[in-house]
Amino acid sequence: MRIKYLWIPILIVAILVPAGFYYVDWSKSGEGAGLYSREWLPEAIFGYWNPDDFYTSVNSVAGEFSGEQCIECHQGVTPGIVNDWRKSRHSNPGNGQAIVYCSDCHGNNHQHLHLPTPKICSACHSTQHQQFEDEKRYGFPSHALAMERAMDAKHFVDKPKAEVTACMQCHSVATKCDSCHTRHKFSAAEARRPESCVSCHSGPPHPDDETYFNSAHGQLYLKEGENWDWSKPLSKGNYPAPTCAYCHMGNGKHQVADKSIWKFGIKQVNPLSSGNEVKRRQWIKLCSDCHDAEWSALQLKAMDKERKQAWKKLYQAEAILKDLRTNDELYPSAEQRPPYPGDTANSLFQREHIGFFEGQASAFYNVSPIERDYFEMWYFNNLAAYKGSAHGDISFVNKGHKAMDKSLQKIKQNAETLRALGKNEIDKTGTKNIWLKGEYTEFNREHN
Amino acid sequence: MRIKYLWIPILIVAILVPAGFYYVDWSKSGEGAGLYSREWLPEAIFGYWNPDDFYTSVNSVAGEFSGEQCIECHQGVTPGIVNDWRKSRHSNPGNGQAIVYCSDCHGNNHQHLHLPTPKICSACHSTQHQQFEDEKRYGFPSHALAMERAMDAKHFVDKPKAEVTACMQCHSVATKCDSCHTRHKFSAAEARRPESCVSCHSGPPHPDDETYFNSAHGQLYLKEGENWDWSKPLSKGNYPAPTCAYCHMGNGKHQVADKSIWKFGIKQVNPLSSGNEVKRRQWIKLCSDCHDAEWSALQLKAMDKERKQAWKKLYQAEAILKDLRTNDELYPSAEQRPPYPGDTANSLFQREHIGFFEGQASAFYNVSPIERDYFEMWYFNNLAAYKGSAHGDISFVNKGHKAMDKSLQKIKQNAETLRALGKNEIDKTGTKNIWLKGEYTEFNREHN
Amino acid sequence: MRIKYLWIPILIVAILVPAGFYYVDWSKSGEGAGLYSREWLPEAIFGYWNPDDFYTSVNSVAGEFSGEQCIECHQGVTPGIVNDWRKSRHSNPGNGQAIVYCSDCHGNNHQHLHLPTPKICSACHSTQHQQFEDEKRYGFPSHALAMERAMDAKHFVDKPKAEVTACMQCHSVATKCDSCHTRHKFSAAEARRPESCVSCHSGPPHPDDETYFNSAHGQLYLKEGENWDWSKPLSKGNYPAPTCAYCHMGNGKHQVADKSIWKFGIKQVNPLSSGNEVKRRQWIKLCSDCHDAEWSALQLKAMDKERKQAWKKLYQAEAILKDLRTNDELYPSAEQRPPYPGDTANSLFQREHIGFFEGQASAFYNVSPIERDYFEMWYFNNLAAYKGSAHGDISFVNKGHKAMDKSLQKIKQNAETLRALGKNEIDKTGTKNIWLKGEYTEFNREHN
Repeated sequence: MRIKYLWIPILIVAILVPAGFYYVDWSKSGEGAGLYSREWLPEAIFGYWNPDDFYTSVNSVAGEFSGEQCIECHQGVTPGIVNDWRKSRHSNPGNGQAIVYCSDCHGNNHQHLHLPTPKICSACHSTQHQQFEDEKRYGFPSHALAMERAMDAKHFVDKPKAEVTACMQCHSVATKCDSCHTRHKFSAAEARRPESCVSCHSGPPHPDDETYFNSAHGQLYLKEGENWDWSKPLSKGNYPAPTCAYCHMGNGKHQVADKSIWKFGIKQVNPLSSGNEVKRRQWIKLCSDCHDAEWSALQLKAMDKERKQAWKKLYQAEAILKDLRTNDELYPSAEQRPPYPGDTANSLFQREHIGFFEGQASAFYNVSPIERDYFEMWYFNNLAAYKGSAHGDISFVNKGHKAMDKSLQKIKQNAETLRALGKNEIDKTGTKNIWLKGEYTEFNREHN
Repeated sequence: MRIKYLWIPILIVAILVPAGFYYVDWSKSGEGAGLYSREWLPEAIFGYWNPDDFYTSVNSVAGEFSGEQCIECHQGVTPGIVNDWRKSRHSNPGNGQAIVYCSDCHGNNHQHLHLPTPKICSACHSTQHQQFEDEKRYGFPSHALAMERAMDAKHFVDKPKAEVTACMQCHSVATKCDSCHTRHKFSAAEARRPESCVSCHSGPPHPDDETYFNSAHGQLYLKEGENWDWSKPLSKGNYPAPTCAYCHMGNGKHQVADKSIWKFGIKQVNPLSSGNEVKRRQWIKLCSDCHDAEWSALQLKAMDKERKQAWKKLYQAEAILKDLRTNDELYPSAEQRPPYPGDTANSLFQREHIGFFEGQASAFYNVSPIERDYFEMWYFNNLAAYKGSAHGDISFVNKGHKAMDKSLQKIKQNAETLRALGKNEIDKTGTKNIWLKGEYTEFNREHN
Repeated sequence: MRIKYLWIPILIVAILVPAGFYYVDWSKSGEGAGLYSREWLPEAIFGYWNPDDFYTSVNSVAGEFSGEQCIECHQGVTPGIVNDWRKSRHSNPGNGQAIVYCSDCHGNNHQHLHLPTPKICSACHSTQHQQFEDEKRYGFPSHALAMERAMDAKHFVDKPKAEVTACMQCHSVATKCDSCHTRHKFSAAEARRPESCVSCHSGPPHPDDETYFNSAHGQLYLKEGENWDWSKPLSKGNYPAPTCAYCHMGNGKHQVADKSIWKFGIKQVNPLSSGNEVKRRQWIKLCSDCHDAEWSALQLKAMDKERKQAWKKLYQAEAILKDLRTNDELYPSAEQRPPYPGDTANSLFQREHIGFFEGQASAFYNVSPIERDYFEMWYFNNLAAYKGSAHGDISFVNKGHKAMDKSLQKIKQNAETLRALGKNEIDKTGTKNIWLKGEYTEFNREHN
């Protein structure tokens, strides 16, 4: 290319880059939030989970009130939360510190109340907030990014609002602190207990609840936890057995991302990379509060093997699906099902996405049954085995691997059926349109 | 019709109405109980669950005994229950009230002992008994009707007795009080705790156990419930978090039916009917013991949406099945499987019952696989989502909806297979008779 | 046969019997353990679960140390376990008994440490050890045989090591005592609580955890167990409700096998044999600590019926599979899948093993989907119903029987498909080789 034509690409860039910024900015300026905010409306209840974006104050009561006045009136109206507050350190700060009243967090104008966000809490708890924000550096999954990554997710656009509502409750861990510190006692002692984590961390794809409580650690907690001194910090020698927070938030550090070796189990990683060797040493140090170091190292190695075995199975299934795709034997194929919502590229060039690296994370919906089976094998069975392995619950390791074996068998069998019948056979029944209704179709978009 | 022929219908009515009453009366007079009592025999163990109908006293010991004598002897024979009684208010009534001895509830003739039914308990606890009976006004499901509706159910006649036995244990909540108040301590404090409810209220189709304990409320109970004062009544301000009974039996009212909006999730209701608006206000009032009223109202609205979404999915599946029925493509069809037990009409005019309003409630058995899939989608997955939504356990909302999505997909796929193969193809294999064995067939009837 | 040829069989026996002994001896002399020890290598972590065979001491620290010295140093290195020990009776023996130090169980040469096996513990706890060993007389399943039967199992040879690792953790109950008595407190009070059992006894095929905690007994424990006096022995009148150990290890007897009537539910037994009548009386005696004897006897009868009903269903499924086998309609058939590992006979004479008495216990792997469905019906659903029935959790009885009904229906449907399609149809697709990869193939053997 001659130098005299250089102005052409420069001009293109000079136009497109600002245009791109403008587009993203515009797309976020709708009534919703995030990248797709012009394409969906929030539910009123979202105001409680994402207050910065959506909360609007009640205005049933007018006037400005002091903290004492709040308490006086709400003792009768909502005694439950006032009782909780009375037991809190906010109410009994000690050391000559000032009492933290309702109005300190919610404002004192009853028609302009606000719900406390992490930022508001950070006025006093800046260290914890800083640690919490620090998680963002490690990427998603992360508590601090949970809300914005949900808001920016393509598949939330047309997902039935009733289901997004369920998602939001846990993802709100990013936008308010009472996911772990139950309002209005906000007790650190309470938050140290495993139950504080598991109302979100349970069920597929992250059975932390099930696997912790089924482990020797969890069983010890269940037997004797009532008598442990929960006012103590989460550090070496203070607890007879670890809880979620003891291992993942040692010494109360509000950041859980920097020790993650296997990346939540969702993709295959090299567990022996230099970065992971550093993390491995941190884990061994932690386990050594009670166990000998060699035992601890061997547990991690056992986990490496478990992960490798899981991926061996997953890749077998993936290979079968890719083979079917190559031979155009998936049914219904990408062209036969509704396009993925908000995905222009996909509606022009339909293609089945198979496996994590092709974007399988979105394969909950709008896929053929055999793809869905693979998705569940990966996202539910594989992660169940992973969590079992990580938390010392061997029943979940077994359950997860048995389920993967079974899924693989089912995928093999269905692959044979797809090949034996071929598309033409099924097309003859004229039932193709059956697939065009479902999640993410005009049907939902209209009625949502 | 001329007036002079009026005697004809009058005569018919005059004969048929008494004949009908006589028939029902006769049908109930068998060895069993309920409408089908001539068609089945009770197991001996049923005497413990439905004592009025079936209990016969042990007669190993002869004689009449005073309460003190009962205690004296049973301290050695069955120390467990005597120890419990000693801790009970029956044993330590206070306020100058008389001690309630074994003989007061069981009788004092050891060859004519009886088990206490709700009626016997009502001699002292009349308010509670009245409230309990009051549930009947709201129809089934209801605690007070649990036994008679089971006894009157067509599908209990030929159901293997081993399975009826399992059903009876929970349904006996209607015929004895120790389902909730564990004998022989009968502690109100104990009955207030959620565990008192969940030995029945767990698992599909009513995972109340799973969903409560996984909610923020349940997690708070698990963390701190040991230290709450369970001697307090279940009223505003007395408990830091609600239990089953706090919400459903507020202030100890022994009637849980009058606040039911969504009818257990088994059928679609209009949640905004005037009757339901009244119930809605009751719920908001209750939630406001701790939460603000607007938040509470929005939670109920979120639940309306969740229910609507669930039914959208269920109706899609129902439509596919009805379409198959219309085209005579269900296999095995109603004619190919054994007739429903005790159902004369069904054995004459076989027809697949699809959906709640056609009587899907009985579709546990004797149906084709695709109908069974729909049944499970409706009765297990849908109700799991409902309970998750009602109890604030979003993992069950997600799990339930994912399972419904998957069932719908499976139903679509199987519908295609049924259409592609057609009945004739399958009939050729000559395996029709395989379906004529199973639950509710001569096979069972003979061996039961 | 003339007497003069007698030397021929005598010679054969004289050669073969010693040769057989020599072969078994040789086969056990590999690096692994058990009958197949020449065919597999242990993982390093196995040393902690099967110390006698595999543990090798750490040698990071040199020298011999007294018990006091161990404590002094490890208080800093691994404070968790030292804190536990300080609370133990080993540390506070009372009655003028000697303190049991680290070195008493682990040795005092830090380069030749050993892990305590049951034999080491038996030096002081000989009664318990004797009872524990006594279990072996009753055959497998048994705690005392758990490790050697795993080591001797054919299907452990090629099973992916990652999965064997999961198995070993529970099976190590045979080779170390801290499966139940958590190190280093070794508290009897702790071991009496149900959580001590359920970290192994949970999930399919033995949902003891789920069924106990869901029963009225378990719910009572959950409500009030915190306040029971766990220092008391497990005997009549000491506990308001039973725990695992109360019923299965009454009075602390370390042997749970001698009361087993239904043999774990894995095969059909005659529950009324004279041997079982003796066991039945033992159970009734035990239940009578709290319940009346007649009620107790009826519960056992109800269980007889439940078992009979379960086997009626299982045999129906078995008959369908045997019929398919007879007609050579199973796909993939035994010849089409990889031979069972280490099974010479099976690789020569391939044959599908159907049902318990043909060796279905190994049918986890390398089977056709319909055989696997039967396996799960038998091993997971049937055993879930059994445990529910045994532990008084009717939700599991219902769940198990519903799952069996559904499996049976699925097996019927798949049997029809197999018959309709026939092997030839499927073979045409040329995908036979898809089955030759999987568990227990060269693929695994190579990468294990």
